[in-house]
Order: sequence, then structure tokens, then C-alpha cells
Amino acid sequence: MSDGNSNSSSNQMWGGRFAAGPSAIMEEINASIGFDKKLYAQDIAGSIAHATMLAAQGIITEADRDQIISGLKQIESEIESGKFEFSRKLEDIHMNVESRLATLIGPAAGRLHTARSRNDQVALDFRLWVKAEMQKTEKMLTGLIAAFLDKAERHAATVMPGFTHLQTAQPVTFGHHCMAYVEMFGRDRSRVRHAIEHLDESPIGAAALAGTPYPIDRHMTAKALGFREPTRNSIDTVSDRDFALEFLSIAAICAVHLSRFAEEIVIWTTPQFGFVRLSDAFSTGSSIMPQKKNPDAAELVRAKTGRINGSLIALLTIMKGLPLAYSKDMQEDKEQVFDAAENLELALAAMTGMVADMTVNEAKMKQAAGSGYSTATDLADWLVRTVGLPFRDAHHVTGRVVALAESKGCDLADLPLEELKAIHPEITEAVYDVVTVEASVASRKSFGGTAPDEVRKQIAWWRARN
Amino acid sequence: MSDGNSNSSSNQMWGGRFAAGPSAIMEEINASIGFDKKLYAQDIAGSIAHATMLAAQGIITEADRDQIISGLKQIESEIESGKFEFSRKLEDIHMNVESRLATLIGPAAGRLHTARSRNDQVALDFRLWVKAEMQKTEKMLTGLIAAFLDKAERHAATVMPGFTHLQTAQPVTFGHHCMAYVEMFGRDRSRVRHAIEHLDESPIGAAALAGTPYPIDRHMTAKALGFREPTRNSIDTVSDRDFALEFLSIAAICAVHLSRFAEEIVIWTTPQFGFVRLSDAFSTGSSIMPQKKNPDAAELVRAKTGRINGSLIALLTIMKGLPLAYSKDMQEDKEQVFDAAENLELALAAMTGMVADMTVNEAKMKQAAGSGYSTATDLADWLVRTVGLPFRDAHHVTGRVVALAESKGCDLADLPLEELKAIHPEITEAVYDVVTVEASVASRKSFGGTAPDEVRKQIAWWRARN
Amino acid sequence: MSDGNSNSSSNQMWGGRFAAGPSAIMEEINASIGFDKKLYAQDIAGSIAHATMLAAQGIITEADRDQIISGLKQIESEIESGKFEFSRKLEDIHMNVESRLATLIGPAAGRLHTARSRNDQVALDFRLWVKAEMQKTEKMLTGLIAAFLDKAERHAATVMPGFTHLQTAQPVTFGHHCMAYVEMFGRDRSRVRHAIEHLDESPIGAAALAGTPYPIDRHMTAKALGFREPTRNSIDTVSDRDFALEFLSIAAICAVHLSRFAEEIVIWTTPQFGFVRLSDAFSTGSSIMPQKKNPDAAELVRAKTGRINGSLIALLTIMKGLPLAYSKDMQEDKEQVFDAAENLELALAAMTGMVADMTVNEAKMKQAAGSGYSTATDLADWLVRTVGLPFRDAHHVTGRVVALAESKGCDLADLPLEELKAIHPEITEAVYDVVTVEASVASRKSFGGTAPDEVRKQIAWWRARN
Amino acid sequence: MSDGNSNSSSNQMWGGRFAAGPSAIMEEINASIGFDKKLYAQDIAGSIAHATMLAAQGIITEADRDQIISGLKQIESEIESGKFEFSRKLEDIHMNVESRLATLIGPAAGRLHTARSRNDQVALDFRLWVKAEMQKTEKMLTGLIAAFLDKAERHAATVMPGFTHLQTAQPVTFGHHCMAYVEMFGRDRSRVRHAIEHLDESPIGAAALAGTPYPIDRHMTAKALGFREPTRNSIDTVSDRDFALEFLSIAAICAVHLSRFAEEIVIWTTPQFGFVRLSDAFSTGSSIMPQKKNPDAAELVRAKTGRINGSLIALLTIMKGLPLAYSKDMQEDKEQVFDAAENLELALAAMTGMVADMTVNEAKMKQAAGSGYSTATDLADWLVRTVGLPFRDAHHVTGRVVALAESKGCDLADLPLEELKAIHPEITEAVYDVVTVEASVASRKSFGGTAPDEVRKQIAWWRARN
Repeated sequence: MSDGNSNSSSNQMWGGRFAAGPSAIMEEINASIGFDKKLYAQDIAGSIAHATMLAAQGIITEADRDQIISGLKQIESEIESGKFEFSRKLEDIHMNVESRLATLIGPAAGRLHTARSRNDQVALDFRLWVKAEMQKTEKMLTGLIAAFLDKAERHAATVMPGFTHLQTAQPVTFGHHCMAYVEMFGRDRSRVRHAIEHLDESPIGAAALAGTPYPIDRHMTAKALGFREPTRNSIDTVSDRDFALEFLSIAAICAVHLSRFAEEIVIWTTPQFGFVRLSDAFSTGSSIMPQKKNPDAAELVRAKTGRINGSLIALLTIMKGLPLAYSKDMQEDKEQVFDAAENLELALAAMTGMVADMTVNEAKMKQAAGSGYSTATDLADWLVRTVGLPFRDAHHVTGRVVALAESKGCDLADLPLEELKAIHPEITEAVYDVVTVEASVASRKSFGGTAPDEVRKQIAWWRARN
Repeated sequence: MSDGNSNSSSNQMWGGRFAAGPSAIMEEINASIGFDKKLYAQDIAGSIAHATMLAAQGIITEADRDQIISGLKQIESEIESGKFEFSRKLEDIHMNVESRLATLIGPAAGRLHTARSRNDQVALDFRLWVKAEMQKTEKMLTGLIAAFLDKAERHAATVMPGFTHLQTAQPVTFGHHCMAYVEMFGRDRSRVRHAIEHLDESPIGAAALAGTPYPIDRHMTAKALGFREPTRNSIDTVSDRDFALEFLSIAAICAVHLSRFAEEIVIWTTPQFGFVRLSDAFSTGSSIMPQKKNPDAAELVRAKTGRINGSLIALLTIMKGLPLAYSKDMQEDKEQVFDAAENLELALAAMTGMVADMTVNEAKMKQAAGSGYSTATDLADWLVRTVGLPFRDAHHVTGRVVALAESKGCDLADLPLEELKAIHPEITEAVYDVVTVEASVASRKSFGGTAPDEVRKQIAWWRARN
Repeated sequence: MSDGNSNSSSNQMWGGRFAAGPSAIMEEINASIGFDKKLYAQDIAGSIAHATMLAAQGIITEADRDQIISGLKQIESEIESGKFEFSRKLEDIHMNVESRLATLIGPAAGRLHTARSRNDQVALDFRLWVKAEMQKTEKMLTGLIAAFLDKAERHAATVMPGFTHLQTAQPVTFGHHCMAYVEMFGRDRSRVRHAIEHLDESPIGAAALAGTPYPIDRHMTAKALGFREPTRNSIDTVSDRDFALEFLSIAAICAVHLSRFAEEIVIWTTPQFGFVRLSDAFSTGSSIMPQKKNPDAAELVRAKTGRINGSLIALLTIMKGLPLAYSKDMQEDKEQVFDAAENLELALAAMTGMVADMTVNEAKMKQAAGSGYSTATDLADWLVRTVGLPFRDAHHVTGRVVALAESKGCDLADLPLEELKAIHPEITEAVYDVVTVEASVASRKSFGGTAPDEVRKQIAWWRARN
Repeated sequence: MSDGNSNSSSNQMWGGRFAAGPSAIMEEINASIGFDKKLYAQDIAGSIAHATMLAAQGIITEADRDQIISGLKQIESEIESGKFEFSRKLEDIHMNVESRLATLIGPAAGRLHTARSRNDQVALDFRLWVKAEMQKTEKMLTGLIAAFLDKAERHAATVMPGFTHLQTAQPVTFGHHCMAYVEMFGRDRSRVRHAIEHLDESPIGAAALAGTPYPIDRHMTAKALGFREPTRNSIDTVSDRDFALEFLSIAAICAVHLSRFAEEIVIWTTPQFGFVRLSDAFSTGSSIMPQKKNPDAAELVRAKTGRINGSLIALLTIMKGLPLAYSKDMQEDKEQVFDAAENLELALAAMTGMVADMTVNEAKMKQAAGSGYSTATDLADWLVRTVGLPFRDAHHVTGRVVALAESKGCDLADLPLEELKAIHPEITEAVYDVVTVEASVASRKSFGGTAPDEVRKQIAWWRARN
């Protein structure tokens, strides 16, 4: 019935990289040690917890346990000192560690694998890694929020144009703008915290997929490894990568937030805007044009959203339609998560640095805030509240006032009172109190509004929670 | 300075659909009423809460408030009875409602718009819609979990092959397999619940982006609309679509889970597997091949993961790099969420129906469970635990036993004791207690394992929480 | 063996939308008539070609053929006049047409279905539709290229800053900038043309998946329907959606190009840049701030890239891992393609209109082009070419000249010759010929460079090909 | 105006990886040498072509040219022998090479950079790399097609079930099934060939973005580097990454094709199907279950579609909305393309190996082909063609025949003639000629159909073109 052969001609076809034929291809596509060695600490911690439990339950002897733990600790120090030789023939981190353990301690090494399988082992290692990474993300978000809070406090009253459609709409303060990002990264942090709750279950003991006949104590290993409890279904345990998908989706949303401020930095550092200046550390110069500072770090942060979207969609696609329980497709999970995690960390660090280091050109911001009749809405509101005009009439009057200012090439505050009265007789001196950018900003005291005092209240609220 | 014109030749170029030139194009690309009319109930509820608050704060009169509310209620009933005429010229749901209100009640309609803007209004409407949709998703997940619990209970002891790589690995029970899905959809439900917490803040009162000088009470509107509290930053409030992104990412993960069982249904209903049979309601037949039942519903559910991935990536891409605050790009958010929500609902309903209605071919499952020496691991474990062989030696002996059975074309349980003893003299009669599929399954009593009693414990745990 | 039932409690669970139970769910998830009715013209054209061939081959009579064709033409006119009643019970466009045909002409209708199946029929209809859509896309790209060529011609010598990192780098002309987009949309058009070549094979006659025993002539139907030739493998024919994937990927790349100019429009219409002004037709105003023009159309065009990315990823995910031949998952192909096509058309039309209508503020562009010492590179190049300095020394001298100008707050061209000579004695009066923006631009005559004459050459090259 | 500082507390916050503060972060986010060193050969080839042209045009001396070329060749050999020390401080491959060249040959190195910039240099290097990769892809596709052609030839008459919805529909041949994949990979190859045409333009000489005042000859460098012609617009040249996007979209579609056969392999190697057996080289075994062979390679190939989708969506997202010309975001292009290319190569090699090596279980395929009344359509067609029944009546008769066979538990061919005549009196002995799977298959002689002779014709057609 055999009709297959991989003859020399097809080998030639593969050429260079795959000249050695099927075995070279298979080794290259199959081995994961190139990336999963990153999990060595988790793998060893998991094995120590497992061995300790096996001994406590009388499944292995205390002597075996001690040998195993001592061997594993030696392997860990070999890896950390760079002396460990990883072998692609041994495929993955589990077999690399196990094989070295056998060399170091002999037959006891074999007993470590009692009541477990590579399926629950990799689920454990990866889950521990993702949990630690999310704890790191949580800390980095706290750092970034702190940087924005500092900036917000310093600039609680610094006026700038508030944009919609990137057109000047109404004056706001730069502190208020910074606090918008505090809200975004605060939400990211809430999501991270809940995601940690969702994954906080220990996979070890699910074995290949069906559980095990050995009298193991999964609550004990769960506790030893810092999990809330063991997972409740062994088939799901080895099939599940929700924790990775959830991390990636949180990272993608966070990257969107980062990309928005990155975009603002790119626009604000143009000569045309000139609102902020990045520190030398976070921009690159030109030997020939000393005034030129390219916002490279901001552009790269902006690009990371593409990369992380890519990792998210990759893993969602990989997991689509996989029958239970473990399928080898799932081995493709780690590189996506590692790459997204590394780049999210880098983007968070770079953004924190840029925010902390940037200098604000208050004069430019203020000038821009006042241009474009940004306080026209304030005038209309004043006409409603003070003069008692219906909203629609107030709008009409305001339109005529703005047209007048435009024709004279001046700001609203520069129009003489008599010309205003000519448009509407009930306009009084008091109107000048609302048409300056400072007055406009100060008046917006509604909860969450841009008035400096309100901004400071929100800063205090966040300080108490950061 | 003007050099632009859209002359007749370019109009001809647009041809058919855009023959009317720029205004037709602009109306078509700009108007959202085609899809945002779906938000009419939220828009009206938000306006009623806003008007009530404005009156309570003395910003409008009680008479105005009463007129506004009565007008809005009339509009709602006009829409629900299909009598309302939506106009694309009026662009969106807000302007359609507002314009009709002006017709119905005159100038008071204009006062409703005091201290708010379309920016916070659409943020409110959409957030209310997404919140309600997630509450519906939560309920539908509870229904799907219930369907799996019923199936699991009935089949807590029904043996089937446990697969890895879609190859038979070890016997499990179908109840245990069902409970794996209970875990998945349980996690989805946890995510939905936390996402509702994350979005439970009221946007109304953020106004255009900067808050408002009117003495509004945002806590009052928040409470009236069922939100925990108002949002804390008005710029963020009109810029934020995290709640939509979070819903889409949760939906995408849930769709992956659905696609996995859908794939299993497609494979299991082949004549080759024959594990389950769908009801006529959820399959399509052929007039000419009466035995053929196509699993159309399962295939369509499987496909939905692509569609929802698409919506997620669409909105992530749309939001990338948008400067604060509101940009028109964000108008593209709704269709993605509406489409994903509608299709997730449909997939959840279809899957719940398929699970509830499917019939299990226990004989086929059991026969498959026993083939392929699926209990070889049990034999090896027995040799370790009972005879005391080291794991590696036990594997070696097992390999020889399996080879013997294969050469004789029989199952492990059919080998005579003397032939087993010839392979290893310490094998006893007791070995027959572990090499049947029932024994294998019953032995895996570890927490979360496949033993029927353990499965029933987990069913009880979930029943108490569903 | 039956253990399934969908009892009343689960029906209640589905609630509102699905209250009618399984049949309502199945009808909703299964029916495609809601969207595939868009294919009516293709469906009818395909049937006419098929019937004509069947008669020519003697498989049906000429009388049957005539009845069929006359019935189909009547149905087409019923649909076009809005009189046709589509039925969801009949699932799709094929069954809706076939059922109506049976009513109109009786038994002959049944003979139309000889030697074909819904599988090759839908493949044909959809392929015809995508082909026509790509031909439309090709024309719209030609129109957009024409709009850019017009603009480029008018502004072949209009100087503006050339940006890298959105920082001023070197002066270029606006005509040159426009021609960059001509290249992009020209590449899009090449891709469309090749994609039409790739799909130009007729599916009809593949039947369900295996071909047919009837003596059909697939070359005849291919020719009648305007295809180059019939497809070569019937299994592939009903399994293939490459033509849809290829259209979506081309659309996604084109949308990226559109998003880039859309972004430039958004930035350039800010008061800070002020490079261009959109016509009223393509922007929205504010009743209260008459100077404000929001670039809504540009923002919406920018957002479309997200939407089309979403459709692309949706269909790639749907097709992943589908076993041959037809699977019902593939029914989800059409909505993705229809939505992407409609939105790409809209974006192309809006962009063509914006380009044609926009006015350029030449003064603002020129002023910006000259700021930021954008001609520093020209000075360095002059020192290399004229004075003979090594590149590195030339850079050093230039750096000192720029620093001097910066300290004096003037442009390079405003520095007195003696001060330049103090920096490097070999600098002569001739240097003033290269440090103006006009001189800089005019000097870049390399093939594809920004010199107005070179730009005009490229315009002529494209005019000959558009 | 300065208010920025990155104080020690924020440095602590970054912790471990970023303890060195801003400069460490910036170096890590900014440097590309970690991945772009892969472009060394392209970088050196481009520089040699550029230097040769500069000398030919009299821009540099022949002596300089010779020194430059000799230095570059030495660097190339240093890199290939592993002696070259890459420095992250020097950021990228261009600066690493240039800096080493300066060390080797002194001032002449500086003159190499005349009339070019890193912007056109990286565009050149990357385009050359992508072109070479696509030429490699083209060859690998030819190899894979060859493997399928061999299999198809051997099994042109091997019957198997043709599936729709993964349910048996009609018998086909395995050769015919293989040829469906030949069509898919043939289309992929057409796309690759056209994509090479689209990118076949030389970027070098575009300089930073505006072209150059030096009298360069871009046609000369284009020719030397194997391009059809130079690019026509210097701004587009440094802004464009279409060639990368087009490669990624082609790769994504190809990966979908690979995933479909991978899925079939996974399903067909289950004990339930047993249609094919992979060679040991492309599967992994179990020490304890000798009969178990996991289709790891097929699963990994299936997963690659997720990974490549991810890279595609990443770059589409990165490029969205980037203003012209070069932005640093574009530096994120290479890792996506490199990763997709490496994994597509691996998947193509593994699939070619699996196809070449697999063995077919003809008996299992034939048995499955005949079950499920797969020839019921043939019976119906026979009734139409031979007996002259209308299609609808023929279906009705066939349904009754199938029901009879089902009730007797036999195949259609096993029903006695008198029982058939009882259902319809005009059925004759001749019917037995059409209801066997061989007859069914042989009858489908329509162009592209499954009849072995027709399959062989298509094999010959492809042989002539492969």
C-alpha cells in the first residue's frame, strides 16, 4: 500500500535550507526550544512544586524529591549562567530540562514525570509566564499613569485648543488632556487585573487530558505556585489558551491608546504646531539640520499597534476550529505572546519616558487656543444664561459676532462693546468675562470638565488610587 | 487662491451611483441614520434623563421638561409602530429625533440641547446599547452552559475517545468533554461581567469635549440611566470606544470556543465518526439522499469566528492613531459592533439548540474509545503503582504488550494472562481491572479528571453557579 | 438512542428574537437571500447561458430553452421594477428565481437545473459579480488618477515642504507630491487588472463537485459569459474563493493609500498648517463657528481602511482549514466582499471629489517650505560639488552656517556673504543660487525627482497611459 | 520653558530591562540591526551598483570606486564568515557597513553616500530581498505542484468519497482531488509572478525623498541590479511598501490553501477515516502506543495561516494613515515580512514532503466512496437521460430506491432488479452500470470532471506548464 517516497529530486527542490531532506524540515518546523526556553524558570518551579506534592502524597520518596529538587536547582543555575546547552533534537524546554536531570540524578528523574504530561506542563509554564507578564504590565501602567499625573498637575491650568476633527473646538487645559490618558491607561489596568483573576487557576495535574489515577493533590500544587485554585476540567485545561488571547486583546487596546498619544506627539512636534518638544533622549537629530528633531520613538510606538493587532489576530486564527484536546497548532501560541509582550513593554517604557521628559510650549498652546474663535460657544451660552435668549437665537447672534470679528481680523475679546450692542442690545460689559480662553476654561466646572479646579480634583482622586 | 472645481466630466466619471456629484457622495458617506436608528430607544431614554436633570437643576422649566418628555414618548411610539419617517438629510438618529421634537413641541425642543452635544449624546446611546447587549450575551451564555450541563449529566459515564492531535489518546467521558465547554463559556461570562463593570460610567454631560458651564448634575443622570457613576474626564468620554473594543474582543474569544465545538460536530457527524446526530431542525437534507444530513448550522457557527475577528480588527484599526477628542472616523464603530453582536447572538442560539437537540451514539463512541490501545497508559501506570517498576521500564513492557496485541489483532483485555506473564512475570489477573475503557475512565479521579463521579461533582459545582 | 429535545424552557431562554425556537434560528442563520439577491442579474445571465448551451448540445429542447429564457427575462424585469417578492423560506437567490420560474413556465423550469448544482451556480454568480466590481474599481482608479494628474499639472512648480517623520526635510513641489499618489493608485490598478486575469475562468459545469455525465460544452458557456476559458478542476471550482480574497487584499492595500492622503488632508486643513482648503461639499461646518470646516469626508475615508482590513481578515479566517469541496462556511463570503466593495467605491468617489475640489494655499505652503532650513542639504551638496569639500567636511560647515542663521533668527539666504566667508573662505555669491526653495527644487532633476520639469515629464508619461 | 525630566524614580519604575533609563529604551526601540542585518547582501550589492554608476557619471573617481568596491567585498566576506561585529549603537545595517568601510578605506567611504540617503537605500535593500524571496516562493510552489502531480498521476483512478459539508456527496478520484490543489498553488504562483512584475522598479536615486541635483543615471543602477526600470517618483519611492503588502497578501492566501490540505491530512489520518498514512519523517510517535502517529507537521502547517494573517494585518495597520514621505513606523515592516517568508517556506517544504511521502489506503477510500448511497445522483441522472423522466420525478424515484436499500441495509448495486422495477417499471439491467462508484466516476467526463481520463488530460496540461 505504500506509494510514498521523498526522492533526491524533491530534496534538491527544497534546496539550501532544507537540503538534508525531511528530517531537517521536520526538526525545524517541530522544535520549539528556540523560543520556549524563555519558560525555563516556570518549568523548573512547576517541577519543584510537583515533586514536593508527589512526595507529600507518598507517590515518590522524600529522597527522590530531594534529588529532583537539587538537580533542578542546578539546572536553573546552569541556564542562568549561560552554561546550559540547549538541544533542538530534544525539541522543547521540558525535554531539555528532563534530559539534563536524568544525566545529573539518574533514575529518580524519570519519577518526576509521574502523574503529569507535557500537555499540562506547557499549560502551566505558559500560564505562569503570562501571569507574571501581566503583573509587570500592571506596574508599567502605574508608572505611565504617574508620569501623566505629574504632567497634568504641572499643567492643570495651561490652556490649549481642544480639538475635534483636529480642528480647534473649545479651549481646554493640557492637564485635562493628560488626564484623558490617565483614564485610558486606568481602564487598561482594570482589564489586566481582571484578566489575572480569570487565569488564576493551576493546570498541573490535568495530565495528558483525562486526569490521572495517582492520588495527587492539585490544591497543594496550586497553592505552592501562587494560584487561587486548580482548574476544574482536565480536557479544557490542556486545550485552553484563553489567558493568552485575553492578554493579547488587552495589549491591543492598550496599544491603541499609546498610538493616539504617539500621533499627537508627532503632530505637536511639527514646526507648524510646536506645542511640545521631546527630549534628545527620545528623538533623533540630523547632523546637518540642528533644529530638526525626528520623533522616532513616538512613530515606533504608534507602529506597535499594528504589530500587536497582528499577534492577536494570529492566535485567534490559530485557535479557530481546533477540536479538543491538545493540538500541535497550539505550539504557535508562544511567539505571538512573547513578541506582543516585549513590544508592549517597550512601548510603555518609551511613552513613559517621552511623557516625563517632554517640555511644553505654553505660549504656543495658548496662542492656538485663542485662535479660531474657540470661545464662540461660550458667548452663545452666556446669551442663553444671562440674556435669556433661546438656544437657537443665541447661536444666530453669535454667528453674527464671529462674522464681524472675522471681517475685522480680530478676536472676540477685541470687539468694542458698542459694535456688540449693535448686533444685540442686551450684550453688556460682562460678556468680556466669558470670551477669553481662561474664562472659558474656568467656567467648565461640571464633573469631569476642563476647569483647572475640577482637573485638580480628578488628579487627587487618581493619586489616591495609583 | 481657489483652484478647485468638480466639473461635469468628473461627475460622469463617478457614474450611476454618484451621478448627482459631490453632494450625493457626501450624503452617502456622511449619514449614519441607516444604522444608528437602532439606537433610538437609548437616544430617547438619554434625553428624558437629561431633561429631567435640567429641570431639577433649574436650567429649564418643569413645563419645558414635561413637554419634552411627552414629545419624546410620542416619537418613541411612532418609531416602534413604524410610522416615523427617518431622513438621511438629517444625518443621524439624534437630529432625526430632535427635528421631529421641534415639530411636535416647538421652541422647548431647542432647550433640550442645553449643556450637551452630539459627541456625548452618541457616546451615551452607544454605551447604553453595548451594556444591554452584554447583559443579553450573559443570559445567552447561561443558557448555553445549561444545555451543556444537561448533556453532561446524562452522559457523565458515556465513554468516548479522548483525542489529542485528533488521534485517540485516552478514554474520557462525553460528560467530561461537555464540561470542558462549560468552563470555556463560563470564562466568557466572567469576561462579560467584568466588561460591564468597566463601562458602567455615564458619558452624558461631557458635552462637546470640555464639559459645560451649566450647573448640571451628572450623578443624577448617571443614576437615572442605571450607571454606577459618571465618567471622570470629559475629553476621554467623547474619545473613548474601549467598551466597544472590549465587547468585540470578548465576542471574538467566545466565537473561537463556538468554532471548536462546531468543528467537532462537523467531524463527529461524518459517517466515519458517527458519534452524534443533529436534529432535523439544525441540519439540511437532500431530497435524493435521505440519509444525508448536512451540518449547515455548525458550519455557519464555525464561520462566524472569521466575521467577528474581522469586526474586532476593523475597530482596532479605525481607532489607531486618532488624536483626541472626537474624530469622525469613530462613526464607523457602530456597524462593526452591531454586526458582531447580531452574529454572536445567532451563533449562541444555534449552538444552544444544536447541543440541546443532538443525539449521542453511545455504541459508536464506546467502540472508538476502546480501539487504538487507548488504555496502554493505564497498563503502564499499573506496572508503576502495583508492580513498582520505574516509569521507563513500565513503558518498555507496555510497548511489548501493545505490540503483541497488535500482532494478534486483538485488544489488550483479550490477551491471555500467560502471554502477559511471558513479557513480565509479575503481571497478575488484576491487570484486567485497569485495561478496559470503563476502568480507565473510573480510575482518573484526580480533581478535574474524567472519572464519572468527579464529572458529577463539577456539574454540581456549576449547577450551583448557573 | 435519541436524547435530544429543545424544550420550552430553552425556547424561553432564547427569548424575543428566537422565541419561535429552532426553526426560526435555523432560518435566520441559514438563509442568504437577504444579501445574495444582489446577485440576481448574474444568476439570470448564468442561467440563460446554461440553457442556451443545454439546447445547443441537445440536452434540452429548443422550446424548453425559449420558455426558460423568456421566463428568466420576465423575472429580471420583475426584480428591477421592485415587484418580485423574495422569500426567506426559499433561502437564496437561486431558489427564489427557480421557484418563480416554475410558477411562470411549469415543468421546463426543472430542466434548467440539468447538469448543474447550486455549488457551481453560486461560484459563477459571485465570480461574475466580483469581476464586474473590479472593472468598476479599475475605472474609478482611472478617475482618481485623472484628478491627481490635473492637480499635479496645475501645481508642478508650487513649492511645499517635503516631510519625513512629519518634520520638514527638503522642499518639494505639490505636483510632485500628487504624482506620488498617481504611482500608488497606478499600482492598485495594475493589481486589479491582473486579478481580473486570474479569475477569468468560468465555473459553470463543475456541478456539485465532480463534473457531470451530460455532454455539456463548458467552453461555450465560458465564452457566452465573457470568460477566457472554463476552470480546469471541478472540485477546486466549487471550493475556491481566491478571487474574493484577492479582491479584498487589493482593496485593503488601496484603502491604505487612500488613508494616507486622507490623513494629510486632516493635518493640512488644521489652522496650524492651512495648506489646503476643502470645498464645502466635502466638509461640514458649524452654525456658530463659521470659520470651522471639519474634514468629515477625509476622516471617514481614513476609517475605511479598518473596515476593509476587517473584511479581508474575516474571509481569510473563514476559509482557513476548510476541507474540500463546498462547505457552508463559504456562504459568509459575500457580505464581506459586498461591504468592502461598497465602501471602497464610496471612498474612491469621495477622495476623487476632494482632490478635484480642494484649493491650495500656495503662500502658506511656500512659507512652510522655506522654514526650518530645509535647504541645508543643498548648501552641503554645493560645498561638495563646487568647492570640492569631502562630504563630511561639507556637513560640518553647513552645520555652522545653520547655527549662525538660527542665532540670528533669519533664513540661510539672508546671511551676508562676509559672515559665510568667515565660516568657510571659499563660499561665493553663487551659493545664494542654491539656498532658495525654488533653486533647491529646480536642481533635483534626477529621474523621478522633484524639479518641475521632471514632474511634468512624469505627468505626460501618465497622461499617455490613463 | 523646560519642564521635563526623567528622574531616578521613573528609572526605577522601568526596572530591570530598562534600568539604564531613556538611552537604553531608545536604543532598544530604535535599533533595527537585530533584524535588518539579514539585508547585508542586498545592501552591499546596492552600494556596488551605486558606486559604479557614480564613477561612470564622473561624480566620484574610478580610484574611489575601486576602493569602495574592494572594501565592500571584504565586508561581505567578513559577514559571511561570521567575523563581522554588528553594533547596535550603529542602529542599522547601512551604518554598520558604512562605518566598517570608513575604517577599511578611509575618506572614499564618505563619497559612497553621495546622491543617496538611507531612505532610498533601505527601500532598495528590502525590495531586492522581497523580489528574491518571491522568486524562491515561485520555485517552491513549482516543487509542491510537482509533488501533487506525481500523486495525481498515480491515483488518477483511485476512487474516494467526494465531500461537501464533510459529508459524502459523490465519488471522485484521489487524483482529481490532488489536482484541485494543483489549481490552487498554480494560482498562487501566478500571483507571485505578477507581484514580481509590480515591484520590478529600482528605488535607488530617490535620495531622501526629493531626488538629487547630482547627474546620476538611475537606469544604469536599475539595470545593474536586475530591475526592469527605475521608479518614477522619488517621494513615492521612499514611502512605498506595497511590494511587502502584496507579498504578505499572496502568502496569506497560499497559507489558506496549505491549511486546507493540512486539515484534510489531520482528518484523514484518524483511525476513523484512515485514508492516508504519513511517513515517519512527518509525524511523531508515542513510545507507549506504537500505532499512534500524530500529524504534527500538518497541524503546524495549518497553524501558519494564523501567523501569516497576523503579519499581513500588522503591516496593513502600520501603514494606515502615514503621511508621506518616510516615517519611522515603516521600520516595523521587515520583521513581519521576514517571519511570514520564513514560515511560508517552512510550510511549503513540509507540505511538499508530506505529499511526496504519504501512502494512500486505497481500500479504505474505495469502501468509504461506496457507502452513503453516493451514487444516488447517478441513478437519478440515468432516469432522466435513459428513461426520460423529468428531473423532479427522477429524484422522487431515486429517493424511494435509496429508502429501500437503507431498509435492507445494502448498497444500491445490491438491490435485485425486480424490486427496482416495482418502484419504476422502466428500470432495466443497464442501471447497474451506473450505480457503482467506478461507473459514477468514469461517467463524469465533462471538462474538469472527475473521470480518470479527464484527470489525466489535466495532469498533462499542467506537466507542460510546470
